[in-house]
Amino acid sequence: MDILKIGVVGTGAIGREHIRRLHEKVPGCTVTAVSEINEEVGREVAKQYNARYYKDGVELINSPDVDAVVVTAWDPAHAKYVLASIRAGKFVFCEKPMATEISECREIVEAEQAFGKRIVQIGFMRRYDPGYAALKKTIESGAIGEVLMVHACHRNMTHAPSMSSDMSIKNSGIHEIDIMRWLLNDDYAAGQVVLPRHNSYAGPEMQDPQIMMLQTKKGIAIDVEIAQNSGYGYDIQCEVVGELGTVRLPDPPSVVKKLGCKRSTDIQPGWETRFIDAYDIELSSWVREVKNGRSAGPTSWDGYMACLTATVLGECREEQLRKEIPTPECPEFYK
Amino acid sequence: MDILKIGVVGTGAIGREHIRRLHEKVPGCTVTAVSEINEEVGREVAKQYNARYYKDGVELINSPDVDAVVVTAWDPAHAKYVLASIRAGKFVFCEKPMATEISECREIVEAEQAFGKRIVQIGFMRRYDPGYAALKKTIESGAIGEVLMVHACHRNMTHAPSMSSDMSIKNSGIHEIDIMRWLLNDDYAAGQVVLPRHNSYAGPEMQDPQIMMLQTKKGIAIDVEIAQNSGYGYDIQCEVVGELGTVRLPDPPSVVKKLGCKRSTDIQPGWETRFIDAYDIELSSWVREVKNGRSAGPTSWDGYMACLTATVLGECREEQLRKEIPTPECPEFYK
Amino acid sequence: MDILKIGVVGTGAIGREHIRRLHEKVPGCTVTAVSEINEEVGREVAKQYNARYYKDGVELINSPDVDAVVVTAWDPAHAKYVLASIRAGKFVFCEKPMATEISECREIVEAEQAFGKRIVQIGFMRRYDPGYAALKKTIESGAIGEVLMVHACHRNMTHAPSMSSDMSIKNSGIHEIDIMRWLLNDDYAAGQVVLPRHNSYAGPEMQDPQIMMLQTKKGIAIDVEIAQNSGYGYDIQCEVVGELGTVRLPDPPSVVKKLGCKRSTDIQPGWETRFIDAYDIELSSWVREVKNGRSAGPTSWDGYMACLTATVLGECREEQLRKEIPTPECPEFYK
Amino acid sequence: MDILKIGVVGTGAIGREHIRRLHEKVPGCTVTAVSEINEEVGREVAKQYNARYYKDGVELINSPDVDAVVVTAWDPAHAKYVLASIRAGKFVFCEKPMATEISECREIVEAEQAFGKRIVQIGFMRRYDPGYAALKKTIESGAIGEVLMVHACHRNMTHAPSMSSDMSIKNSGIHEIDIMRWLLNDDYAAGQVVLPRHNSYAGPEMQDPQIMMLQTKKGIAIDVEIAQNSGYGYDIQCEVVGELGTVRLPDPPSVVKKLGCKRSTDIQPGWETRFIDAYDIELSSWVREVKNGRSAGPTSWDGYMACLTATVLGECREEQLRKEIPTPECPEFYK
Repeated sequence: MDILKIGVVGTGAIGREHIRRLHEKVPGCTVTAVSEINEEVGREVAKQYNARYYKDGVELINSPDVDAVVVTAWDPAHAKYVLASIRAGKFVFCEKPMATEISECREIVEAEQAFGKRIVQIGFMRRYDPGYAALKKTIESGAIGEVLMVHACHRNMTHAPSMSSDMSIKNSGIHEIDIMRWLLNDDYAAGQVVLPRHNSYAGPEMQDPQIMMLQTKKGIAIDVEIAQNSGYGYDIQCEVVGELGTVRLPDPPSVVKKLGCKRSTDIQPGWETRFIDAYDIELSSWVREVKNGRSAGPTSWDGYMACLTATVLGECREEQLRKEIPTPECPEFYK
Repeated sequence: MDILKIGVVGTGAIGREHIRRLHEKVPGCTVTAVSEINEEVGREVAKQYNARYYKDGVELINSPDVDAVVVTAWDPAHAKYVLASIRAGKFVFCEKPMATEISECREIVEAEQAFGKRIVQIGFMRRYDPGYAALKKTIESGAIGEVLMVHACHRNMTHAPSMSSDMSIKNSGIHEIDIMRWLLNDDYAAGQVVLPRHNSYAGPEMQDPQIMMLQTKKGIAIDVEIAQNSGYGYDIQCEVVGELGTVRLPDPPSVVKKLGCKRSTDIQPGWETRFIDAYDIELSSWVREVKNGRSAGPTSWDGYMACLTATVLGECREEQLRKEIPTPECPEFYK
Repeated sequence: MDILKIGVVGTGAIGREHIRRLHEKVPGCTVTAVSEINEEVGREVAKQYNARYYKDGVELINSPDVDAVVVTAWDPAHAKYVLASIRAGKFVFCEKPMATEISECREIVEAEQAFGKRIVQIGFMRRYDPGYAALKKTIESGAIGEVLMVHACHRNMTHAPSMSSDMSIKNSGIHEIDIMRWLLNDDYAAGQVVLPRHNSYAGPEMQDPQIMMLQTKKGIAIDVEIAQNSGYGYDIQCEVVGELGTVRLPDPPSVVKKLGCKRSTDIQPGWETRFIDAYDIELSSWVREVKNGRSAGPTSWDGYMACLTATVLGECREEQLRKEIPTPECPEFYK
Repeated sequence: MDILKIGVVGTGAIGREHIRRLHEKVPGCTVTAVSEINEEVGREVAKQYNARYYKDGVELINSPDVDAVVVTAWDPAHAKYVLASIRAGKFVFCEKPMATEISECREIVEAEQAFGKRIVQIGFMRRYDPGYAALKKTIESGAIGEVLMVHACHRNMTHAPSMSSDMSIKNSGIHEIDIMRWLLNDDYAAGQVVLPRHNSYAGPEMQDPQIMMLQTKKGIAIDVEIAQNSGYGYDIQCEVVGELGTVRLPDPPSVVKKLGCKRSTDIQPGWETRFIDAYDIELSSWVREVKNGRSAGPTSWDGYMACLTATVLGECREEQLRKEIPTPECPEFYK
């Protein structure tokens, strides 16, 4: 297999972005097929990249034109296409979340184990961000000693009308849920959601900001502010506190300006530019690994754990209670 | 009254530090009298500063040699000397905490109101720190909009053997309790104490670190990490999050060194140097105001509120419950 | 031309690095041919990448297997291979410096103009560094007003035994010479080299550090410290001072650690990691442009101007005099 | 001598500022006498501080009401009052510059030596700035090894109409001239003034910015940008480069704001606030030392060396030449 032939299911914003990335930034692959419910859009994208259009995603997955699958359909359809890819025995990269229901997650991890080999990768791209990678490396070096706490925040500048209190956890918060598990190499034991004063720029129904409080099995206490209306930019902060010291995620580099009695650096307005390198590295790495017959990134088990935790936190928020998170033991298959 | 004659009750570490400060840094005053239970120490300090030694603090307070009183005795004796000063009608500066019991706090605020004029100032010196002053000024400018949250930490490098889980809140945490009320101009409604993974450098009985979670009457959510074993230095951080943006307490200035593949600034080892300017400004300001017949700093009501909040948080910690904080209405006298 | 077939002349350290980069990071190309004086090394590299080995670089350049040429031979041979590429009418990317003699530079720009189309690109990779790109963008936005001065430094941690006072300008300094011309969109009028106190870690014959002082035609004053023995790391700083304010090159991102009474970020030990993104972007961009039939990066004229300026600065250093830089008018062809 | 009685000669802006400072911030002294050419202003200031007014500065100096003298008259009169103070055998603090002519400087150092004891202190307040003190301490610790270079800048936001090319060196630049001598514990050997592109916000006659280039006897190369029209604020930067690393002057602390896609700290608009602590420490220290019968700050020799260096640099600027600085050997008396 010289050039990896990729089929992309779903050509919405993130889908088109990934197709462009595979085309311009990732060596050794080509997008040969796209499917999309909106036929007009799908055909146009297909034409632009000289790919074949499929009305039906499952048909695309089963096509001999497709060596590996990228799922960027809408969230509720993710599980279906991941399962189809497993059945077809094809490596599949699925944007987060892996599924919207815990039951679907269970079905996927069972199907993959039955298939007998890890072929599913979930799009938790932060694990490929050089900043988070350096953070993890520092933690694992032992420099700061045993980790005791993490203080973090995830702030979007403004939110789309479709955003809700629940999505704030399941869509934004899920990145934090996954990255903390990965950084700390630990699982969750309990959670709580604190509701601060309501931001008047958020819709009246919308609880914004929220503070997700998580406790891991080792007892590490995590607090993550999730805000959909920071007002000033897209800002991701993470400080890991150990017994000997702390380590903090770097901000993206920016020129330093001195103007009008202010020394300033720029804060990015959105996630698109903030994690652009992470996305590039993620897909390049996936293609390279797949061509070597492996899947080495975030697994379907990670997708399952994120979905489970986000679901419990959603209940914590609604009931305003601290709740246990019933995390199952990770099977050997996923270690 | 040309030169203010000050009597100091208690010549332990902080007492001697304040005497030195009044002598070297504060214009317009002189220390004329000191009292101290340990007679040898007391007489030596008195001799060094050419002051008169009193065995009994109350006698000192009532002496005609004394225009105004500084109370730096041990914590359980604070209330007694503050009350004696009120009875003597003399301005009194009392190191924090004002008292160790809520009932004593009530007695003081009642005695002062009965006296009819504010003459008690509590040693919450952070209010005089230029950094916190700039933070408050920025908040009150409206630049960051309505405040929604505060994320803070108070980290000591290591702790004395006498430190305990309870003192961690009542001794370190009380500074945070007072400064947040002052910064936000708001009172507390509820609290909770989160217990992260135990720091193995802390004694086995000692809960360290702790996270104090406070909610104000306006709904502002505050989280303050209190650590007695940061391992790396004395570190005070405070980020105030508003609807339009955030503002953060500055770190103390330090030269920037580039050595051995590191760019570094120094972190101070202890509070003595971190807040040295705040202490100087606090006592200079107190002397100036007292000479003008006023007390303008943190009031006995502030001392009462801090004690009340710390007491409830102590219960939250022990019972691992979120609890209401029964904050009484502030009397007109203290506004 | 679907996949660009690239021939690489010279497989020393930077040559092998570029081959690996073309293979792993740059879509749309393949290395089909390598030449190298050291036959053993050359054949091994060729084998590793499934390319054809040529003993003779000119033969490689003329081969039908080669669409475009990368010159990474030793510096004195650069001009020969660039000229051969022009004669063959093939796009050529030549590592800096373009040539070691001014006369060779003139020959190249004349040959390229005679050919009638820009096909030479010089490896001044800093122009592709996102930090310098942001610096230029800020300057050109007018935010800091007209530029008056640039303060910069280029510090290597330690130097190889082969380094000399002259190479310090012609090898390290040449990057600064090119990037300032590009940043400021201006040419040089005069130069001077200041010799500070000798660094005892440098060889006794070696003048280190040196300060290159340049004046542009518009009168902008540039000072660039060039040090081969910073002792602490590889450090590139650049502050551009305008009439309204200043803008400064960002440092590469690094986690922030708090340990042992220090807050620190990492400084990189060498250029390899500092400009890794710039190299990737540079070659990706070159391949993309070449496939579109264009050469859009640093031109042979830029290579000529850098060589000319470095040569005059070498004389300034030796004679310890300020000298005019006889910059010729840029031909329309290169604008 | 319990309370030091101070006479102030000259009640212009800086004079009134120092009187206020002695009154409010400096323990152990009182301003008993002021003199001022403008009688109305002088009498008003005298009245405000309950001091005696003298029409004639020399009369004030000789008055038994005056223990020690502060000279804040206009620059050309400095030497006269310093000499009168020496003749009266009274400690004198003289604002910089000590004199406007080199011959006056010589007269002062000779008179003081003849008197037989150091009683003159010059107002180079930067030596009392905690930032510069930390810089010197780091240099002297040996952490960065032998010093090779200093890169610095001194930027004012805008200038008064009275500012000139010459004053830019003799008034602003003189602070840099003194502080570098003190930081490096070294004397000057040669100088040069580079004239960058003219800032169009400066008057047409005014050379602004300028770069003072100094070489010390040990060979250390110093470049200091002096700008009277930074456009953005009052900004003092200083990086000292040693054989092992570098150390940089801290910026004054400022809250960090995140607003409108910018992370910013404040830059101060003028020197008044930037060096406020340095001025307070300077005068407190002078009063304390004088009460102990000593003068321990910048000496009249320092004043002489600064005047000499500034004068030669003025010639360098006019003649656009590098010139030797004929620094005399420092007498034992001043070491």
